Amino acid sequence: MKLRTLTVAALLATFASADLIQQAKEAGLKPIPKDLTKLYQLIDNPKNPLTPEKIELGKKLYFDPRLSKSGLISCNTCHNLALGGDDNVPVATGHKWRQNPHHLNSPTVYNAVFNIRQFWDGRAKDLEEQATGPIQAPPEMDMKAEDAVRVVQSIPEYKRAFAKAFPNEPITIETIGKAIGAFERTLVTPSRFDDFLNGDAKALSDAEKEGLKTFIEVGCASCHNGVGVGGGSMQKFPLIGKYKYAHIGDFKGDSNGLVKVPTLRNILETAPYFHNGATYDIKEAIAIMGTTQLGKELSKEQIESIATFFQALTGEKPSITYPILPPETPATPKPNLD
Amino acid sequence: MKLRTLTVAALLATFASADLIQQAKEAGLKPIPKDLTKLYQLIDNPKNPLTPEKIELGKKLYFDPRLSKSGLISCNTCHNLALGGDDNVPVATGHKWRQNPHHLNSPTVYNAVFNIRQFWDGRAKDLEEQATGPIQAPPEMDMKAEDAVRVVQSIPEYKRAFAKAFPNEPITIETIGKAIGAFERTLVTPSRFDDFLNGDAKALSDAEKEGLKTFIEVGCASCHNGVGVGGGSMQKFPLIGKYKYAHIGDFKGDSNGLVKVPTLRNILETAPYFHNGATYDIKEAIAIMGTTQLGKELSKEQIESIATFFQALTGEKPSITYPILPPETPATPKPNLD
Repeated sequence: MKLRTLTVAALLATFASADLIQQAKEAGLKPIPKDLTKLYQLIDNPKNPLTPEKIELGKKLYFDPRLSKSGLISCNTCHNLALGGDDNVPVATGHKWRQNPHHLNSPTVYNAVFNIRQFWDGRAKDLEEQATGPIQAPPEMDMKAEDAVRVVQSIPEYKRAFAKAFPNEPITIETIGKAIGAFERTLVTPSRFDDFLNGDAKALSDAEKEGLKTFIEVGCASCHNGVGVGGGSMQKFPLIGKYKYAHIGDFKGDSNGLVKVPTLRNILETAPYFHNGATYDIKEAIAIMGTTQLGKELSKEQIESIATFFQALTGEKPSITYPILPPETPATPKPNLD
Repeated sequence: MKLRTLTVAALLATFASADLIQQAKEAGLKPIPKDLTKLYQLIDNPKNPLTPEKIELGKKLYFDPRLSKSGLISCNTCHNLALGGDDNVPVATGHKWRQNPHHLNSPTVYNAVFNIRQFWDGRAKDLEEQATGPIQAPPEMDMKAEDAVRVVQSIPEYKRAFAKAFPNEPITIETIGKAIGAFERTLVTPSRFDDFLNGDAKALSDAEKEGLKTFIEVGCASCHNGVGVGGGSMQKFPLIGKYKYAHIGDFKGDSNGLVKVPTLRNILETAPYFHNGATYDIKEAIAIMGTTQLGKELSKEQIESIATFFQALTGEKPSITYPILPPETPATPKPNLD
């Protein structure tokens, strides 16, 4: 092939990519902003504005198992930042090895800031509210709110950190949630997909571009859209026909029977899939989505192609220094394994 | 006070400190070497020489819960680097919330490299051997050795890392232990006590110096000595009289009835105390050591003074970037919560 031919081929490829980027944007897919000011505006919560003090305090609390009754379970146990932001098991498992009573699967904390609401039934309006839930839930960290506050109050370094992060607020389960929520807002993972949407035609392989096209054309992007590639709406599931694994757990969705559409960012790292963690097989999960949500049998090639596109959604995780937590004092409530 | 008087006082204090440093050294207390070459020689294992590849791989494995049957428990669960290198609970608690059958308390991993042997009964000769134990123990991570190997073998990034770290060895539970052991060897925490032993008279407060003197004079340093301030020998416990909490658990020590002397480094961060985690109260622990090991009732002032000295043993922890673990593949054994 001559240079001229190559150049023409490259130009054609660039035009084709520009078309695909346009098509993706029209389908509602949006990149994580490259511009830090825009990103900040997107992840910030006006009711709990981000500050370095809150984020640093929230990071410590996120990793602190002393917020659990046993002293063994932290936010990071089920939403492990080392493992795609979740726990790899089908059902959230916590205090005394209790399992989520509805057999719900821990969703990833990465990019959860882009979710319209939190929890599978969307009952928490934001990350700050969500974070107070698992601390207190008996099958999770099983800590009474007042005991969580007592732990923090008993540790001078935490008291000082709260005074700096929340100068005019007492330490409560709500401020604990606000600190953790602030930290979680920073857990976004830009990927090659963002580079592509931002105009870098070479960021995706040809097979991934084909996959993105298929993803849009068969209709996945009608729910999995926005910056989160999901997380933006509550939907009926199954919408059509029968969910093969409906027998696992008794989750019925929110009061309207709706379930939150999960983000697909880092989806290849967050098996098992669905609210009830029914399958580890991404291709089976795609096939099920085809039948239950789109009313179509996707071909083997389509499924393969969409799974290939998902590689481009694996993002870069923020680098986090593992915290050295401030030591407890004689006033700190003792862990309780029972 | 005139300048001349001040200078004389400072000189006297320096002489007094030099005397105390001498006394401490004669009692067998040794600093963590400041000189990196000497430190390296002290922590290295000729049978498993430290390399950056082993340490980095070992760090990942240390934090990887996929080495447990449930996929939820890692080395760091019970030896939490955020919490003084242990778990704060009286009894090690693992798979299915099972507890150590002898009611043994997880010891700290920090400075464990200075221990003459590993485990409370000293049954492992080094960290490399120790690390393979909890992975397989049913009340801990409950993972069959071959399943741990299968997990690692199924993850290409791990396979490559093992090939680099152990070019001529197959992946086995032993090489997994060697990688984890290499990482653990780096977990040393120099403190103000080391600065003092290295000649910095001002590194300890006057009260801490008094405490160190008491610590030596009443006899604590006859077992709690060496670089680890403990960890250097197996001893009878109780040596004299009755251990107040002997009813907790049924641990009988090694085949000679001996128990490993624990390190006192970071002791104020590693409650509860003793092999059976019987008390969170450091002063009670010191008093018990007085009666059971030294055959004396320590006075309230002596106990207070020794506890004050312990502040100087709280060391600086290595800064660790929380690892992003390589994702599993369809070939990776699935977690099993049962």
